[in-house]
Parts: sequence; structure tokens; C-alpha cells
Amino acid sequence: MLPIFKGSEVAAFLGRRRRRWSLQQQELRKTVEEILEAVRREGDAALRRLSRQLDGVEPQPLRMPAEYLQAAWRDLDPALQEAIDGAIARVRRFHEAQRPTSSWIEPEPGVLLGQRWTALGRVGVYAPGGKAAYPSSVWMSVIPAQVAGVLEIALASPPDPTTGRVHPLVAAVAWRLGLEEVYAVGGAQAIAALALGTDSIRAVDKIVGPGNAYVAAAKQLLYGQVGIDQIAGPSEIVVLADDTARADWVLADLLSQAEHDEQACAVLITPSEPLAQAVQRELWRRWPNLERRAILERSLRQQGACLVVEGLREAVAVSNELAPEHLQLYVADPWSVLPYVRHAGAVFLGPYSPEPIGDYWAGPSHVLPTGGSARFASGLSVWDFLKRSSVIAYDQEALARAAPFVIRLARAEGLPAHAEAVQARLTEPCP
Amino acid sequence: MLPIFKGSEVAAFLGRRRRRWSLQQQELRKTVEEILEAVRREGDAALRRLSRQLDGVEPQPLRMPAEYLQAAWRDLDPALQEAIDGAIARVRRFHEAQRPTSSWIEPEPGVLLGQRWTALGRVGVYAPGGKAAYPSSVWMSVIPAQVAGVLEIALASPPDPTTGRVHPLVAAVAWRLGLEEVYAVGGAQAIAALALGTDSIRAVDKIVGPGNAYVAAAKQLLYGQVGIDQIAGPSEIVVLADDTARADWVLADLLSQAEHDEQACAVLITPSEPLAQAVQRELWRRWPNLERRAILERSLRQQGACLVVEGLREAVAVSNELAPEHLQLYVADPWSVLPYVRHAGAVFLGPYSPEPIGDYWAGPSHVLPTGGSARFASGLSVWDFLKRSSVIAYDQEALARAAPFVIRLARAEGLPAHAEAVQARLTEPCP
Repeated sequence: MLPIFKGSEVAAFLGRRRRRWSLQQQELRKTVEEILEAVRREGDAALRRLSRQLDGVEPQPLRMPAEYLQAAWRDLDPALQEAIDGAIARVRRFHEAQRPTSSWIEPEPGVLLGQRWTALGRVGVYAPGGKAAYPSSVWMSVIPAQVAGVLEIALASPPDPTTGRVHPLVAAVAWRLGLEEVYAVGGAQAIAALALGTDSIRAVDKIVGPGNAYVAAAKQLLYGQVGIDQIAGPSEIVVLADDTARADWVLADLLSQAEHDEQACAVLITPSEPLAQAVQRELWRRWPNLERRAILERSLRQQGACLVVEGLREAVAVSNELAPEHLQLYVADPWSVLPYVRHAGAVFLGPYSPEPIGDYWAGPSHVLPTGGSARFASGLSVWDFLKRSSVIAYDQEALARAAPFVIRLARAEGLPAHAEAVQARLTEPCP
Repeated sequence: MLPIFKGSEVAAFLGRRRRRWSLQQQELRKTVEEILEAVRREGDAALRRLSRQLDGVEPQPLRMPAEYLQAAWRDLDPALQEAIDGAIARVRRFHEAQRPTSSWIEPEPGVLLGQRWTALGRVGVYAPGGKAAYPSSVWMSVIPAQVAGVLEIALASPPDPTTGRVHPLVAAVAWRLGLEEVYAVGGAQAIAALALGTDSIRAVDKIVGPGNAYVAAAKQLLYGQVGIDQIAGPSEIVVLADDTARADWVLADLLSQAEHDEQACAVLITPSEPLAQAVQRELWRRWPNLERRAILERSLRQQGACLVVEGLREAVAVSNELAPEHLQLYVADPWSVLPYVRHAGAVFLGPYSPEPIGDYWAGPSHVLPTGGSARFASGLSVWDFLKRSSVIAYDQEALARAAPFVIRLARAEGLPAHAEAVQARLTEPCP
């Protein structure tokens, strides 16, 4: 369990990780295409039927009554209410600092260029659920949208198999955030309903939030028709540690990722082979008393690794290659390593910034790019719920100055009507 | 040709436009999946074979020699060189004003939160081509990437059927922008090569730039494995005009969009039925002398419309419903209308800002959201080539303050190892 790799084994491990993900996606696509087609054709009836088949329960009803949401919050342990309110306040504050402003430049006389930011109109948030529940996903997805100024937010989350309702914790958080539209529907069928619309659920402009592989495949197939935040894969952590790190804390960090599910990936990268060995010993020591061992065993054995490298420079290079969702810099001087980090969804600095502080509390959304997509993508943020319109305003003289060049370029591309739209505005013909 | 719709016909037109696009996508998917699979399995050999089959020519060679690119620029008409240089300078200047800066907040003692922007490592740019060539797409896609700080940019563009090489105009602009990697490969196979890599083309992190429906389908299927800018559909313009607008200029603007291809969509929205009729008369008057009439006839008849509405308020509402790629505000006071525009890729204000000024010259990228995706997406920009990493740094005391809440939330989600990763750091056990 949690194998140690050194030298050329490190490169082999990196290669295996990069190849796996795409293959999984393809296998699911066919199943998911059928689900999308069913929702497209049959609407709400398909949602009920698929829920019976896949979740083992019919939503009771599809849209959660306000009384249910309110009661879910009211019945919550006050200590938990306090924790949720604390997290909501911090996440809101962080995202309020993130709002961009529209801006204008006047690059030459008579020319005004701008970019206007406007909020999306209607957004769908998916929150995983079913037997377990991840209420933190609700605040981590909804708050950036609210701060951006999105007015309509529809939340979808799978029905609990025993009640046919959204998990009480998800319902409670939805109520606390002021959501009114909460639907007890999950999986690919929820994504289809949000993207395509049914009689009960109006189509949204963009769908965000993590989900399982079916949710991911549905988001991919519907992208274009609707915006999506990302195609989420399994969760990942890289703990980059040197010999100043305590093995028991490193192990605790790796376990906190590995316990998510069997696909979760926890990797230690260290120049210190003694640390890697100490982490392994610590794992054996704690093993008999750990919870969720079935999941831990699979994820540590199949996805996890301790990569022993030459030095911190190589450690960062290997981490950049993995482009992890979470990167913990647990080294003597994390601030001196940070500038070399090129690809990571979120970076946690020093011994007192364990990853769960970001999962629930600190401020940035925990919806982060997975599966190596931190190479090209960012975590969920206010920007996901805004779009820019370019603005171009020329006056008559500025157009006349630009005209000969624009006409020349349009003609070179073989687009005469482009040239003519400019030419028509000139009082003098353009050579 | 260019039918006039009023009253309930306007809603019917809007409904038709929203439904069409998704169906097109599905039909192509199977063909494109086969192309992707061929490139995945056979690499460069598949590229050569597919090029023979689909473009009617084999790339000569796959990677364009530097001498070919340089000669393409050298042999260009100096007047065209001057126009290209003028455009490049303006587009660069606009995007330089767009660079965001990393930022930090200290929301409470001992807590530092930040967002670091880093550039993508390696990007692929697709430039449509073949018989026609759109060199402007090259500078409109490449410059935002260069300004963002992307170091490696690979350009792919279909081979000219007669020479097997990238169109000379595309090659010339690539040279002028300092690109070294230019590949004569187009269509879905180009996207597959950029995303998956072959012996000759190293895989990129993100693919941007417009392309035909095959390119769009390939980008969708590979999204996740690689970043993409958007799934481009046919080009669109809405001219929103009142009775101060000249019918001949309005028509010129509609034609400049309609000439792109048969799927291009040119729509006039106006409260003035006399203007709509005058635009139609103007069309008949100019018709015998127009170029590209086969394309114009199809796109105007099938995609185009003059929508006659009640007033400017309804005009803007209808435009927001269409969420057009280009919106021209050709009204008496365009600045008073702009605040009501919610969804548009780029907005052109007043009589002297015809859309081609933005296609070639003004500054913002002309790679814009199409097919109604301006509801949730923005034009290509520096942001497409940057990603944010969240940064979280807690000190010992700050973690101790947060710990009881984080532990409570982790336990509520049934994730004991999350709680333990925090608990382990506390000198006193947490209740």
C-alpha cells in the first residue's frame, strides 16, 4: 500500500496517470448519451423513471418544498449551524475581493475600446449526494455565483434512497444561502434536465459543481449548448515535503484525500527517502484504527505513491507534471518554492495549512481542476459566472483613418462585403 | 430573401434558432470519434492518410519549414504587410491592458489568501484555411496567448489542396508573429494531433481558434483531456437599428456577415418597419452586382431575418435572447442602449463602427462566442491563456481558531480523515 517509487519509476508513474483518464470517459459516453436522449424526448417522465432505476427511488417531489428546506436548516445542531455560517462568511468575503470591473481604453483619438462584464442569467449547480452528502459543495459553488450577480440559481442533488428527497444537510445549506429552486435529481439526468429543460426545470445557461463520472460525461456532451465549469475527475493531492515535515502529519494529509473514494489520488513527493519510509511506517501503525479502510486501501494502492526525487527542484517539476488539484508545500520555506509552482488548483503553504482548511473554510472555492487539468483550468470563481463583451466605438474620422487598411485586409481574405461595409461609410472612395 | 417577421413570428424565429444547433453536433460526433481514434492509434500516419482523404492532398511536409514561412512574409505586397503590422500592433495593445495581476488578502490575523495567475505552458492554435484563408484568425488567436506569456504555440491550418502547404497568408502572419511550429494539418485530425500528440506534434495544454463543424465536434470530445476556448458555431450579427439608420449601411453590415458561409446568420432588429422595407429594397437594388451570391442567398434566406419589434426596449430584449456574437447598435444614442445589453460577444456602437473594424483591426480578439453561447461565454482574451491557483496559508494560531469548525464540518460530511488532518496539528485535542 502507498508504494515508494524512485528514479525512472517516477517517470513511469507520471506516464500512467496521464493516460488513464481519457479511456474512462469514452466507456461512459454511450450510456450517458442514452440518458440525455431520454430526458430530451420525455422530460420529467424520464427524470422519474431514471431516478427509480439508478437511485432506487422516485423524487418526492421533484422540486423540494420551501418548508422542507427551511425545516432542514432549523433542525440542524446549532454548533453545525455556526460552523456553516462561519464558512459562508469567509467564502463570500474571498469572492467579493475577486469581482473584476469593466474598463475602457482610448488607444487613439476617436476610438473607444472597452470590456464590459455582465453576470450570467441563470445557473445550475450540481451537488453530489445520495447516501453521503457534501453540503460544502453547495456553498463553494453557489457563493461565487451570487457574488457575481447571478439572479437565478437552480440546485440539483440526488434523492436520498430512503426518503426521495435531497439530503437534509444539502437542503439546509440551500435554504441558508437563500436558494428557492432545489431539485431532487442526480447523475447525468440532472445535468440533462438543467441543460435542456423539462416542464418542471427551466434550462440554465451554465452548469457548475462536482459530480461522478456520469455527471462529468453529461457535462462534456452538453457543453456548447450550455456552459460548464469543468469536467471533474477524481480528487487529488500532492504533498511536497522535505525532511522538516512530520511523517504523521504528512500521512494525515494523504489520508484526508484518499478517503474520498477509490479513485482519489494522494501522492507524496519528497527528496527525503527517510520521510517516505517514515510515512509508510506511520500508515502501518495507524492502519488498525482507521475508518473507511476499504476505500483507503484501494485508493492508496492503486492511485497513491511516495515519489522520492533528487531535490526540491525536481519535486516541483514532478508536481507541475501532475498539475494536482491540491498541492501542499510542507517544506522549510514554502514561500521560496511557490514561485516555481506552475500548475496547481490550490496551494497550501506550511505545516499549519492542511488541505481540509480549504475544503470547508478558508475562502477560495474548493471546486478545483482535477485530473491534471490545472495545466489549463482554474478553480471555480466569480469569473465563471461573468462574461465579457468587447465594446468598439469609432467616430467618422477614426474610421476614415482605419478604412484603407481594413479594406485591404478584407480583400486579401476574399471577403468583399466586409470591405464594402467600411467603404460605404466613406464620403471619399478608398483606393 | 431576408424575410421580415413581426409580432408572434419574432418569437417563432427565436425558438427555431435555439433548437437547431445541438442536432447538428450529434450527427457529426460519430465520424469525428473515428478520426480521433485513428490519430490516437496511428499518429502521424493517420494525419497523412486523413489529409489525403479529406483535404485531397498530403502535407508537404507536416511541419512547415522556416524558409517557407519567411518567404511567405517576404513575398507579401508591402501595403498588405503594413496593414497586418497595424492590426498586430493594435490587437497587442488592447490585450496588454487586459493582464490581471496576482493578489493577496489577509482576512484575519495569521491567514493569507491569494490568487496567483500563471500562463499555460503550451497552446495549439487552429486557423481555418484550405482554399480560402483567414490570416486574421492567426493574429486574433496568437496575440492574446503571447501577451499572457505562453512560451510554446503550435499553429495548425489545413494544407492548400494544390501545394500541400499552409496558405501563404497564414504562413506569412505566423512568421511575423514569431511562430516556429506551423503544421499543415486541418479538421478534426488537427485537433486530435494537438490534443493527443503524435511523433511529430507534441500534445498541447489547450486548443483555441475557430473552425468548421468537424473541428468543433473534435474540440468537444477532447475537452477535459485538453482545454478549449469554445465550441465555435457559425458566425452571427445582430444589427439593432432605429429610424436614424441608413438602409444602405445596414444592408452592407448584414451582407458582411452573410457572406461568410451558408450558415452565417445576419439579423436586423428594428422598431422601424419602414427601415426593414428599405433594407429589403436596397438588397434587391444591389443584388445583381453582389459577389458571393450563392452563399448570400442561402444564408439570408435560411438564417437571416428582419425582426420588426415594438420599440428599442423590445429590440434589446430580442437581441439578448439571441445572444449574438456581434451586436451593432446603430441607433440615435447607442450609449444609452448599451447598459441594457446583457449577452453579446462584441458590441459595435454607432454608425461608424461597422463590424469588420473589429474583425481585423480595432483590438479585441475577433474569436467570439457563437450560436447563442454569449449567454455564458466570452471572446478569446488573455484570460484564456492564464489560470489561477488559489493560495492558502494559515499559521498555528489561525489554524487552532478554525479547527473546531472545520472538524465539525468534516465530521458532518462523514470524512473522519479530513477532521484528523486538522486535529493532528493541535497541541490540545479539539472537542
